Amino acid sequence: MNDIDIAQAASLQPIRHIAEKLGMPESALQPFGHHKAKVDLTYLKTLEHKPDGKLILVTGITPTPAGEGKTTTTVGLTDALNRLGHNASACLREPSLGPCFGMKGGAAGGGYAQVVPMEDINLHFTGDFHAISTAHNLLSALIDNHIHWGNELEFDQRRIVWRRVMDMNDRALRQITCGLGGPNNGFPRQDGFDITVASEVMAIFCLARDLKDLEQRLGNIVVGYRRDETPITAKELKAPGPMSVLLKEALAPNLVQTLEHNPAFVHGGPFANIAHGCNSVIATRAALKLSDYVITEAGFGADLGAEKFIDIKCRSAGLNPDVAIIVATVRALKMHGGVNKEALDTKNIDAVRSGCDNLIRHIENMKQFDVPVLVAVNRFSTDSDAELELIRDIAKFHGVSAEICSHWSDGGAGTEALAQQVVDLTQTEQPLCQPLYNNNLSLWDKVHTLATRLYRADDITADQKTRDHLKMLEGAGYGHLPVCIAKTQYSFSTDPSLKGAPSGHVVPIREVHLSAGAGFVVVVCGDIMTMPGLPREPAANRIRLNEQGNIEGLF
Amino acid sequence: MNDIDIAQAASLQPIRHIAEKLGMPESALQPFGHHKAKVDLTYLKTLEHKPDGKLILVTGITPTPAGEGKTTTTVGLTDALNRLGHNASACLREPSLGPCFGMKGGAAGGGYAQVVPMEDINLHFTGDFHAISTAHNLLSALIDNHIHWGNELEFDQRRIVWRRVMDMNDRALRQITCGLGGPNNGFPRQDGFDITVASEVMAIFCLARDLKDLEQRLGNIVVGYRRDETPITAKELKAPGPMSVLLKEALAPNLVQTLEHNPAFVHGGPFANIAHGCNSVIATRAALKLSDYVITEAGFGADLGAEKFIDIKCRSAGLNPDVAIIVATVRALKMHGGVNKEALDTKNIDAVRSGCDNLIRHIENMKQFDVPVLVAVNRFSTDSDAELELIRDIAKFHGVSAEICSHWSDGGAGTEALAQQVVDLTQTEQPLCQPLYNNNLSLWDKVHTLATRLYRADDITADQKTRDHLKMLEGAGYGHLPVCIAKTQYSFSTDPSLKGAPSGHVVPIREVHLSAGAGFVVVVCGDIMTMPGLPREPAANRIRLNEQGNIEGLF
Repeated sequence: MNDIDIAQAASLQPIRHIAEKLGMPESALQPFGHHKAKVDLTYLKTLEHKPDGKLILVTGITPTPAGEGKTTTTVGLTDALNRLGHNASACLREPSLGPCFGMKGGAAGGGYAQVVPMEDINLHFTGDFHAISTAHNLLSALIDNHIHWGNELEFDQRRIVWRRVMDMNDRALRQITCGLGGPNNGFPRQDGFDITVASEVMAIFCLARDLKDLEQRLGNIVVGYRRDETPITAKELKAPGPMSVLLKEALAPNLVQTLEHNPAFVHGGPFANIAHGCNSVIATRAALKLSDYVITEAGFGADLGAEKFIDIKCRSAGLNPDVAIIVATVRALKMHGGVNKEALDTKNIDAVRSGCDNLIRHIENMKQFDVPVLVAVNRFSTDSDAELELIRDIAKFHGVSAEICSHWSDGGAGTEALAQQVVDLTQTEQPLCQPLYNNNLSLWDKVHTLATRLYRADDITADQKTRDHLKMLEGAGYGHLPVCIAKTQYSFSTDPSLKGAPSGHVVPIREVHLSAGAGFVVVVCGDIMTMPGLPREPAANRIRLNEQGNIEGLF
Repeated sequence: MNDIDIAQAASLQPIRHIAEKLGMPESALQPFGHHKAKVDLTYLKTLEHKPDGKLILVTGITPTPAGEGKTTTTVGLTDALNRLGHNASACLREPSLGPCFGMKGGAAGGGYAQVVPMEDINLHFTGDFHAISTAHNLLSALIDNHIHWGNELEFDQRRIVWRRVMDMNDRALRQITCGLGGPNNGFPRQDGFDITVASEVMAIFCLARDLKDLEQRLGNIVVGYRRDETPITAKELKAPGPMSVLLKEALAPNLVQTLEHNPAFVHGGPFANIAHGCNSVIATRAALKLSDYVITEAGFGADLGAEKFIDIKCRSAGLNPDVAIIVATVRALKMHGGVNKEALDTKNIDAVRSGCDNLIRHIENMKQFDVPVLVAVNRFSTDSDAELELIRDIAKFHGVSAEICSHWSDGGAGTEALAQQVVDLTQTEQPLCQPLYNNNLSLWDKVHTLATRLYRADDITADQKTRDHLKMLEGAGYGHLPVCIAKTQYSFSTDPSLKGAPSGHVVPIREVHLSAGAGFVVVVCGDIMTMPGLPREPAANRIRLNEQGNIEGLF
């Protein structure tokens, strides 16, 4: 059975039953159908006095085309903790609709470790992304409208940095000229579309603590510059009010369930390169008030995802992860050990041993944050016992427990050992997790710290224009912001072909972008795509309704 | 109190109570919060054996800036019929989100004749328009992707007629160049965005009888032409499958309530110029199965709105209106009689008498469809009794009853006289309503029939290119389609300044567009805007959340 068959065969519980497990009254829910609900923000406010549960971060080794399974592990561990009698919730990112019609499948887990209803979650869900797209594009329209009617704020039309967004894989919109057709249509200028998950509104949505914080952050967005290079903000366009109105309902976190009827908050989903790649702060905080254990995931490998989770999300929201779990697979470690995708089914102890250099590097990195670490080995049917045992031994040698997890085929029952480790590890008092760098450092030094301590580069470089840009941002008062590194997720270096644990490389900064509303400076080190395209044979070709009106081919 | 104050002060009933009034079980509902629901299509299928209720069309005189009040009359009449003990539902169009941030207010009625929750209805509601935008733009992306990967279907890139859409007033997107930036981004070409309500997907959505019909119609969309001018359809791009998947949930009709807790189906909202301007067939048919009286509205004045309702919607869906109600106001008739907007508060019997020429023309026109006619005079506080009495007398002279309605200030109680007339008129057997023209006529003759019989023009004209285009469409097998006239709504003629009841003019056809999926040929006679812009001081400037988190300034 593939993922969609398993999901469609599942019997779901009414969402109010799931809410009951968390002690929530039905009146706290805004239902969307019978199996999805938004949790009222006003209700969540009444929980503020309650103590927080334990926060468990699921991160991974450096990703490979073999797949690692962070989302399935997050879901499987949630189910396993519930099986052990604990009250545990998952906190996941919402998938983007656009890519479903391109290459990749959905993002609601897989096998017997999924959140459901998976078709809804992967398509329109509760409309959050549509609300974010609309709020973003309203700001875009207000910019061009302001210029059309006289440009009182004195936008330099060559320096507008706020693009438009669409939740679609549409390469033809990456670069456009808008405002064509004469005076009635405004001033022609260069523009383009990003996919919605790349919107700064998405990042803001995920970092906002409440509606007030949301509106404040939206007002701080820098949309363009004057000829003298002074910034113009969304607030000057009176945009935060109507944008907040558009986002008000969306900001309430979404509650769904795992296949084993345990609670999952699926809310927000920013890019993990030009943004921080975590689900919403509001959902995470809600789950912490309602559960003893909250299991959440970050984007990409631990060098990017876990780092941003801690240095950006946790620092901004005052959160503290109690355990970090690094997900690995035999197959992915083999690829780090030099094996081709075609040969992954063949037992290869040497390749696994060599590939474990990548895992070890991530273990060492996570220890720099003072966060207790576990390794989850996400088992595939082709794995040999010897390969699995080797990973356990190597992890143990580095002071970390590794557990073999089979949630994909067995659901929560396959991941109870990991769950027990989590429980044991959180029984003892741990020191608070520490960000890797102090925000008082210069922007350059922040990047340098990340590059040398996490990526094990010897140095970072940038041309004069980029160095000047960093200075300009510091002069304009943005030097205190954390940095958000956009680089390839496929290597510790900026060369995606360097697998394993490279060191001694140099990280070149290509350009920097200010995300003043989200509250970070994006440092781009390589080619970053903010609007995907569709492949030659898009997944759309096989997606349809069958005779019974059910969805086919979504994954 | 303004509309939003009245709406926010209203106490709403749970939507399942409203459904109960129609005999619907709670299991037939997909709730969206506590006051909105979608009605399952599978449940609606079980009602097919039931007889239909009476279908009451609310249309209007030629619109003026004074406002006429078709939506309020539709709501008020629904409430009035329920007050008289009948089971009546309203069927309304969904408002477009974009214009809420521009000039106009929402479209959920007004005063004490509104549908609620009005903020939801006017913003994201149940996400239907977002689903329509997404389905539309997926097709757009598939076109450019197809060309990018080799253009097997041999699109002539100069003849792509499928644009993109956004639910936003954004003039800068009216005309763009897309695909810029080199080979990775596709081929540069001219393109542009329309507002979502102008999408052919919206028209299809509103005319489809069920999911199968939807998919079929989506497949028939002509998206572009080859060099030899043969059409390329959405089906050839394998688009109908994924587009139907995106629209599946949206196609279920939305149920909300009036301020007096009576059922209102608010579903679909196509443009009334380049499309037919009526709510969805699926909602109308559902309401007819569930109610004794269904009150619905059409766009603009009766010459455009009622004509398209009968000639396009009813003909396609096999519906028959039992009564047509023409809404007029003293103020609007004064404007047709030559009075400026500033002088509308002053009593002016002569102007009302002169303006009634417009009303009389619409009465005569509706009789050509063999549909029984009533006039609703939507009362304003500035109206004098003499003016109101004059309208009644003139209507009576032309064989039609006119009733004074005060639903805006009094709710359903103010419109009981009209409701009683509706009941009386539908007691006696009436002949079936007739379309104005036979679909076997040539496209030219269809337009000629409309222009001479309804607009009272002497003739129609077109340049050779347009005549050739009409011939080409007939040659390609589209000659049997009805025509959808896109002309100014402010006059029977194509000159918006010609108020009253002009005749003897000539209707010039500027261009024609094929909407093969919706099933009509759009005949453009004048300037038609398919993407509005924002005004100098957009309504967005005053829309915000107040300290309590409630929406302010939406209207």
